[in-house]
Amino acid sequence: MTAPIRCVLRINLKREHTFWGAGVANLLHHIEKKHSLRAAAQEMKMSYSKSWKIIHEAERELGFQLIESVKGGSQGGGSYLTPQAKTILQAYDNMTDELGIVMQKLFIKHMGYLEKGKI
Amino acid sequence: MTAPIRCVLRINLKREHTFWGAGVANLLHHIEKKHSLRAAAQEMKMSYSKSWKIIHEAERELGFQLIESVKGGSQGGGSYLTPQAKTILQAYDNMTDELGIVMQKLFIKHMGYLEKGKI
Repeated sequence: MTAPIRCVLRINLKREHTFWGAGVANLLHHIEKKHSLRAAAQEMKMSYSKSWKIIHEAERELGFQLIESVKGGSQGGGSYLTPQAKTILQAYDNMTDELGIVMQKLFIKHMGYLEKGKI
Repeated sequence: MTAPIRCVLRINLKREHTFWGAGVANLLHHIEKKHSLRAAAQEMKMSYSKSWKIIHEAERELGFQLIESVKGGSQGGGSYLTPQAKTILQAYDNMTDELGIVMQKLFIKHMGYLEKGKI
């Protein structure tokens, strides 16, 4: 059976160039879970150097740090999201969710006929 | 002066794979103006074979033709959008415009603080 036509949304942030999108957001979510940039990169099948570059470029454009490294300590070291990273990640996720709902309505309004085979 | 942070939207259509987005829409707009797939491809700095492939894949997934070729005739031959192509292109543009307006509001609501330097 053929898969139905779906509408997919991508929201990016840019200044001169795009520095934030679903990829950075996913990477940050993985860092939050794994407390490790290396493990997060592996999880996304991305090289460590690429993941580092992506985070670093987003930090430069945003003007604040997204991750901070803790060395050693009783619970072991690792990478953690800064409060600012948690704030923007939550804002991006909320925005994506809310816009996704609106998009589905608009998709049915404007392109609902596609699935009915009537055009 | 640093450019402000902007929010950019991309809407794609997919079944198994993405077959429609801003690129196909742009290509169709250029074909509408130029009445030529080759000229439209040039306008977008895209190879003729790539533009043909993009259109052909979208046609296959949608199940209808997007462009039709007219040979010769009093006004000369060329490529024209089918009525179905005009309908979906208009629907996509309307959807993109409407969603863009909602996105800007959500961007200010969720990420307005970014431009104020307060985080």
